[in-house]
Amino acid sequence: MAPGSGGGSRTQTADADRRALVALGRVVEPPATALVPLVDALGAAQVLDRLRADRLDGVTERQARAYRARLGLVDVDRDLAMAARAGARLVAPGDAEWPDSLDDLGARRPLALWVRGARDGGLAETVERSVAVVGARAATAYGLHVAGTLSGQVAARGWTVVSGGAFGIDAAAHRGALSVGGMTVAVLACGVDVAYPRAHEALLSRIAADGVLISEVPPGTGVTRGRFLERNRLLAALSQGTVVVEAALRSGARSTAERARELCREVMAVPGPVTSPMSAGCHEEVRARQAALVTDGDDVLDIVGRLGADSRPERRAPAGPLDGLDPEDLRVYDAMPLLSPVPAGQLAQASLLPVADVLARLGRMAVQGVVEPAEGGWRRAGREHRGRRG
Amino acid sequence: MAPGSGGGSRTQTADADRRALVALGRVVEPPATALVPLVDALGAAQVLDRLRADRLDGVTERQARAYRARLGLVDVDRDLAMAARAGARLVAPGDAEWPDSLDDLGARRPLALWVRGARDGGLAETVERSVAVVGARAATAYGLHVAGTLSGQVAARGWTVVSGGAFGIDAAAHRGALSVGGMTVAVLACGVDVAYPRAHEALLSRIAADGVLISEVPPGTGVTRGRFLERNRLLAALSQGTVVVEAALRSGARSTAERARELCREVMAVPGPVTSPMSAGCHEEVRARQAALVTDGDDVLDIVGRLGADSRPERRAPAGPLDGLDPEDLRVYDAMPLLSPVPAGQLAQASLLPVADVLARLGRMAVQGVVEPAEGGWRRAGREHRGRRG
Repeated sequence: MAPGSGGGSRTQTADADRRALVALGRVVEPPATALVPLVDALGAAQVLDRLRADRLDGVTERQARAYRARLGLVDVDRDLAMAARAGARLVAPGDAEWPDSLDDLGARRPLALWVRGARDGGLAETVERSVAVVGARAATAYGLHVAGTLSGQVAARGWTVVSGGAFGIDAAAHRGALSVGGMTVAVLACGVDVAYPRAHEALLSRIAADGVLISEVPPGTGVTRGRFLERNRLLAALSQGTVVVEAALRSGARSTAERARELCREVMAVPGPVTSPMSAGCHEEVRARQAALVTDGDDVLDIVGRLGADSRPERRAPAGPLDGLDPEDLRVYDAMPLLSPVPAGQLAQASLLPVADVLARLGRMAVQGVVEPAEGGWRRAGREHRGRRG
Repeated sequence: MAPGSGGGSRTQTADADRRALVALGRVVEPPATALVPLVDALGAAQVLDRLRADRLDGVTERQARAYRARLGLVDVDRDLAMAARAGARLVAPGDAEWPDSLDDLGARRPLALWVRGARDGGLAETVERSVAVVGARAATAYGLHVAGTLSGQVAARGWTVVSGGAFGIDAAAHRGALSVGGMTVAVLACGVDVAYPRAHEALLSRIAADGVLISEVPPGTGVTRGRFLERNRLLAALSQGTVVVEAALRSGARSTAERARELCREVMAVPGPVTSPMSAGCHEEVRARQAALVTDGDDVLDIVGRLGADSRPERRAPAGPLDGLDPEDLRVYDAMPLLSPVPAGQLAQASLLPVADVLARLGRMAVQGVVEPAEGGWRRAGREHRGRRG
C-alpha cells in the first residue's frame, strides 16, 4: 500500500477511491463543482475510470476534454511520496477527521484535503470550535497588534484560530495563537509542502509542528489568484465565524466574509480609526449591518461560542465613589465647595432641601466615606472625587 | 414693558405668563415635571399666583415648601435686564421659534429657554435639521480630529451641529461647524451669560455671534452635576440624532445617547482604535446594537437625513484594471509570467482551456489593455497590475 493512502483496515475499494482522489486532484482546478456530485454518486475510482475511458456523463464535453488533457500529469505514487516526505496525509470525506462543516459547501466542497499536523482527534476536532481571523496583508501596526491579541485570547480559551498564512493580519493571527500555546490552522492556496510566501517558511514550519497546515491542492502546487480566492471559501466553511481585523474597502478578507455569510457563519469586524483606509472595509461591513462589531476575543466568543460557556463577561465601568448616592444626595454633595467646609444650613439653602433632611443625608454620606465633618461644617472627603462627565 | 418679555403684539395675559415663566425659572430646578402639566393647564401666571397664595394643587407639600423657599430669589425685572445685557431673549412654548421637538420630552420639557443668537427664522428653524455631536471632555487627538471633520461635513451640507460647549469633543464639534461657516448651537448647563468653562469664553462668544447659545436655567446661574445631566436631555431632544464621537464606558455622552434613544431619535457612534479607552463606550454602543456605526458626515446624514436628499453616495473602491475579466480570463492572465512573453499554446495548457478559446480571450484582454502581444507570444500589458489580496 502506498504511504499515506489510508490505514490497513480500509477495504481495497476504499483504497482505490483514495488513490483516485489523489489523481483527480491533479486533473481539476478547485472547486470541482462538476465532479463532486459524480464522486458522491459513483465513488472517486469509478469517476476516474470513466474519465479515462471517455465515458463520463454529467460533465460538458469541454470540461471532459480539459480533464483528459491533464490526465498525463497524474502520478499518484509520486504525489503520495511527496506528501509523505512533508509529513502530510490525505483526508477524505467519510474519514473520521473529515470536518463536516466543509459539506456545507455542497458541490463546491474540496474533493479531499492534504493535511500536515493536527491535535489528537484529528482535523475535525481541531476545527470543531474555531474562528477564522483574516485581514489585510498591508496591515498597520495597530491591526497587527489587535489581530495578535484577539487571536491569543480566543486560543487561550481553547478555540482554534484559522487563517491563511499570508503576510500581515494572517501571520499575526497565527502567531497570536501560537504565543499562548493555542491551536492554529493555516489554510493554504498552495501545496502543504510549499513555503509561500517564502519569508513565512519558518512560520509555516512552526504551524506544521504545533498546529495544522491544510490545502486542497496537491503537494508541490504553487499559488494563483484563483486559488487564493477559492481558498477563502475553505477558511469561511471550516470555522464557526470569521473575524475581519483590518481590510480596505476592496480586499480578499471581505471576500472571505462574504463566503462566511453565504454559509450562514457569523461574520465579525474589528473597528479602527475612521482615518485609516485599512479599517474602511471593517467599518463598511458593520455600517451595512453585514458584520457584528467585536473589540476582543471575549466579544468574538460571545458571538460564536456556546451559550453560557463562552459568553462574554458584562463590560462594566469600575464603580465610582458616588455610585450609591441618589439625586438629592448629589445636590447636597455638589453644593459643597471643593476645599473649605460649609455649615449644613448653607447646604440646605443651596440644595433646596430641609435642614433635617440634609443632616440625615450628610450622615449617610459620611458613613460611605464620601463627605466628612470638619471645623465649620462639612466637606468632601479625602481625595477629590471625580464625577461623571456633564 | 420689560425688555425681552415679548413683542408689543402680545396680549397682557401672554406678557404676564412670560414674566411668570421667568419667575418660575428661579423657583424650580429642571426638569420641572410637577409644574409643566400645571402650566399647560392653567398658564404660568396662574401657577405662580397659586404658588404664592399657597393653594397650588398637584404638587406635594414638600415640593410646594421647596418652591416657596425660593420665591424670595425671584426678581423678574432683574433677570430680564441681565438677559438683555447678554443679548438673550426668552423663548416659550407657543412662540413661533419654540422647537416642537422639545415637546417630545412631555413633562420633562423645559418651562422656557433663554436664547442668544439664531439664524433668521429663529431657534425652531435652526434646529429643524440638526445633529447633536457629543463625546468625552478628555478626548484624544484622534477624537478631536474626527469630531471637527465630521461636524464640518454635516454643517457644510446645511445641517446644524448641536453640542454642549464643553472641553474636548463638544468644542471640536462647534469649531468644526463654525470653520465651514456652518450653524452650531451650544446647549449650556449654566446661564447663557455665564462663561463656563472659563477657558471657553471666546468660543462661547463666537457661538453667540455666529450660532446660538441656549439654556433652560436663568441668567447668571452656575453649573451643577444635576444640571449637566439634565442638559443632556435637551441635546437629545432638540436634534434629529446624536453622534457619540469618543466616550469611555461610563460617560455623559452615553447618557445623552440614552436620552436620544428614549425619544426615538437616531443614535450613532464613531469607532476608533479598540486599544483606546476613549472609544470603548462607542464600541459598546455599536456592539450592543444601540447605536449605528458612522465614520463621517455622509454616514450621519444618510441616517438622519431625508431619504434621497441627504443619502450617502455609495462607498466604492476604485475600479481595478482586471475588473472586467471573468474567472477564465484571469486563469489565462495568471498563467503569464510577469516578465517574458509566452506562446498562446503554453497558456492554453496552463489554464486548461482550448487554444482557440485562449486566443479569443487574449484578443479581448488586449483591447482592454490588460495584455499585449510581444515577440514570442503574449505578456501582461504596461505596468504591473496588482490584483486582489488572496
